[in-house]
This record gives sequence, C-alpha cells and structure tokens, in this order.
Amino acid sequence: MAERSRSIEFLGAEANAFLPHLAVDCVVFGFHEGELKILLTHWHRRQRWSLPGGFVRRDETLDEAAHRILRMRTQLDHIYLVQYHTFGGLNRRDEVIAHMFDGSAEEGAAAAWVQERFVSVGYYALVDWADVTPTPDGMLTDDCRWWDLRTRPPLLFDHDEMVERALCVLRTQLRHGPVGINMFPKTFTLPELQRLYEGVLDRQLDRRNFQKKMLDLGILERVGQLRGEGVRRAPYLYRFDVPKYEAALRDGISLGR
Amino acid sequence: MAERSRSIEFLGAEANAFLPHLAVDCVVFGFHEGELKILLTHWHRRQRWSLPGGFVRRDETLDEAAHRILRMRTQLDHIYLVQYHTFGGLNRRDEVIAHMFDGSAEEGAAAAWVQERFVSVGYYALVDWADVTPTPDGMLTDDCRWWDLRTRPPLLFDHDEMVERALCVLRTQLRHGPVGINMFPKTFTLPELQRLYEGVLDRQLDRRNFQKKMLDLGILERVGQLRGEGVRRAPYLYRFDVPKYEAALRDGISLGR
Repeated sequence: MAERSRSIEFLGAEANAFLPHLAVDCVVFGFHEGELKILLTHWHRRQRWSLPGGFVRRDETLDEAAHRILRMRTQLDHIYLVQYHTFGGLNRRDEVIAHMFDGSAEEGAAAAWVQERFVSVGYYALVDWADVTPTPDGMLTDDCRWWDLRTRPPLLFDHDEMVERALCVLRTQLRHGPVGINMFPKTFTLPELQRLYEGVLDRQLDRRNFQKKMLDLGILERVGQLRGEGVRRAPYLYRFDVPKYEAALRDGISLGR
Repeated sequence: MAERSRSIEFLGAEANAFLPHLAVDCVVFGFHEGELKILLTHWHRRQRWSLPGGFVRRDETLDEAAHRILRMRTQLDHIYLVQYHTFGGLNRRDEVIAHMFDGSAEEGAAAAWVQERFVSVGYYALVDWADVTPTPDGMLTDDCRWWDLRTRPPLLFDHDEMVERALCVLRTQLRHGPVGINMFPKTFTLPELQRLYEGVLDRQLDRRNFQKKMLDLGILERVGQLRGEGVRRAPYLYRFDVPKYEAALRDGISLGR
C-alpha cells in the first residue's frame, strides 16, 4: 500500500511536473572481472528487467534528466553520458505498466499518463563498476543490479533494441577514438583493456596485435607491474595519459577494421 | 485572413493530432556550383529564416514525421535522412511565434500550444540539389530556398546551433566513411567532389592529395571526360560504384586527419 501510494504520488499528483510523452532511458556499461556489464532494474509487479529510465521534468534539460535519473540509480554524480538516439516508434506505450495499476481513480490518472505513446531519448553511460551503488526506486522497481551483457535476461519494452543500438554506436566510437578512461579504476592491465574491447565488439582479438596497436597510440602510460602468478610473467599496469587520451578523442585514431 | 485561418486550422483544431512538446527540425544539405547549400524557410511575420521543421503526428513515427515534413518542403519522396541529435534545452519555446498570433480565442489556443517548451529531434538530409522543388507552407512561411551554407542569414531559435552540430556529425561521417552519393547527379568531377568535402570541412584541401586518396578508396568509377576549356585539361567524369560505396559505408575508411 505504502509502495502503491508513493507511485501515485510520482505518477499522479507530480505528473504535471513532467513533460508528457517523453522519457529518458540509459544504457549503463561497466566492466568487472573480464566481463562487460550492464545495469538493469527489476519491475517487481512484472517480474521483468529493464534499463534504468525516467521522465523529463519541465524545469530540466534532457541531459539534466539523464544525469538525475542515473544519480538515483547509481549514487554517482559525474557520469560520462552520451545521447545516442531517440526512439520514436509507434508502439512505445507502457500499456503493460499501466495495467499494473489498480482501477482506483487515483491510480487511473497515473495509468492514463503512462499508457500514452512515449518517445524516449537514449543515453549510454560508461562508468567505473566499483563506483556504482545500484539502487532501485523502491516503488515500481525493487532491484537494481549489474548483469553480464552477454547473459542478461530479455528486457521489457524495446530495451533490447536500445542496448543493441548503443553497442553499435560504442563500436564506432571505439574504432575511431579511445574508449575506457571512464570505465577503469586508475590502473589496469592490457589483458583487461583487451577484454573490454572484446566485450564491446563481441569477438576475440589477437593479443599481440591488440597490444601493439594500443601501445602505438601513445595514450597509455606504464606505471608498474602486478606480482607474477606461478610461471606466468606478471602483467604491467597502465593508466591513461589524460592529455594524450583527450587529443586522441578529439583528433580520432584508427584501429583498423 | 485566409492565411491566418489556415494556420488556426493547423495549430488549433488539428493540434490534437500532434504530440505536444515535440518537434522535428531538418538540416538539408545540397551542393550546387561549387558551394555547399542549405535549405531554409522564411517566416513572413518575423521576416527571419529557419530550418524546415514541423510537429509529430500521434500516428506516425519520428522518422515518418521527418520524411513527411521534408516531402512538403522539397517535393521529394525518398530522402537520405539521419537522425543526429535531440535538442532538449530549457529555452526551446516558440514564444516569438506565439506572439505572431492575434488575441482571438481561436488563435489563443494555437499560441498557447506553440509557446510551450519544445524538445526537437534533429535530422540532417543529403540531397541532390537539382531534384528539390523548395516549397514554403504558404501559411507561416512564405518562402523556401537554398542558401550558401557559408553566407546564410542568422537563423531563428537555436537553429544555428542545430546546423553546427549537424556539420560536426557530417564531418565525422566524412572522415570515416564515404559521403556524396545522395548529393550528386549520376556523374561528377573530382574538383566538384573536393569542393563538397571542403564545404563540409570548412577548409581547403590539397588537390593532388585529395584526388589520390579518393581514387585509392576504389569507390569511384571513371565514366567519361568533359570537354576541355581553353588550355586546361578536361576533367574526367566519375560516378560512385554503388556496391563498393556501400561496402565502404559499412566497413569504414580512413581519410586521415
């Protein structure tokens, strides 16, 4: 009940604070233990997962809405966010969500509001996994957590298409510029960086070729060496050289096909 | 008067057919006589120019809205259109336009509708100049015509920012893939292609270097030669090899910085 009346508060009385027909959805990528991760929220009345998303307040810009929504879901303030596509198909209605409300007058207004057609502005975010505190809203969603991108559950609405499209844009970004500065703690090894690239590209890369190309870019700075394990040589630790990274971002690089 | 009542019809009685708060604006690029051109419409009550734009019907997708709007302004059915950014700043209101309506009850509704905050989905289009029949709506705008991109008048609203951002995206596209197949009639000369590239990049390119790079891409097919003028050698005519052009679009190319 308490949970329900809070959702009324959000979608009913407060609905006037938001622009109708407009949503923001965020594809949040992280990297942990050699896997590309994605942050998902769980709709408890539907027992299904979706991207973190929300609506746009009349007094905030689109970018501000995306940052506010992600701050609520991650507890992070400064997130590297890219607006990548606006989804405007005809079937973008939250009818399923609308059906989750009961037939009361209060919930009727909220149900009517959400079951209108929505156009959604898609953002993707690249974050350092370790900095995020996944946080559900406690109203419509009761869980928020990282999933492996490859083995994530099928998503609600058209959110799987949103993920695919974000990955396409990220692949292009990765082919023509550096990627990773927002996703790693200060230091990382080349095998870790390679696994990030492999996760985005969804294919294996040749180790020696990858390492040569990355080092040739001149954006990595060697800062130490891990302890060796058994007979394997200990991998070096690197960090991004920020000015050179930013120059590569600005001027473009080519990693070939 | 007739013009005014038609604008009421569009923005008043018919307003329910459109999603509120949402617009589409289009940056249409063409190429003619060595100059990169942009299609603009003239608001006669304001005596100012803007990008062609419009609203989104409840029964059409965003892409369909963009195509419908450009069909009205160009009389062209199949246009190469790219959604490139959604503009969601706080000051995106058509207050100026709203003030163009008189104080009557009929026009009041239209004025109220347009002076709300609008989020605008930006598309850019690359078209063959010769195919376009510029067509104003005859209601709010009384002229529609090509301007040289470089010497265009300052635009209404935030449309200059929209043009700059479209150019940025087009520059990136041009650096990593071929551009031009939609902008030229069947055949063209290398100097014409170079002037298109120079127009997009807003800087001069070295002729020999440009020609070598373009020919090395293998996407051009030589199909003839213009008649020579005076002592200058007649330039060759080229057309794009469509399958190779499409492969280059898919796989990416690098023209360097």
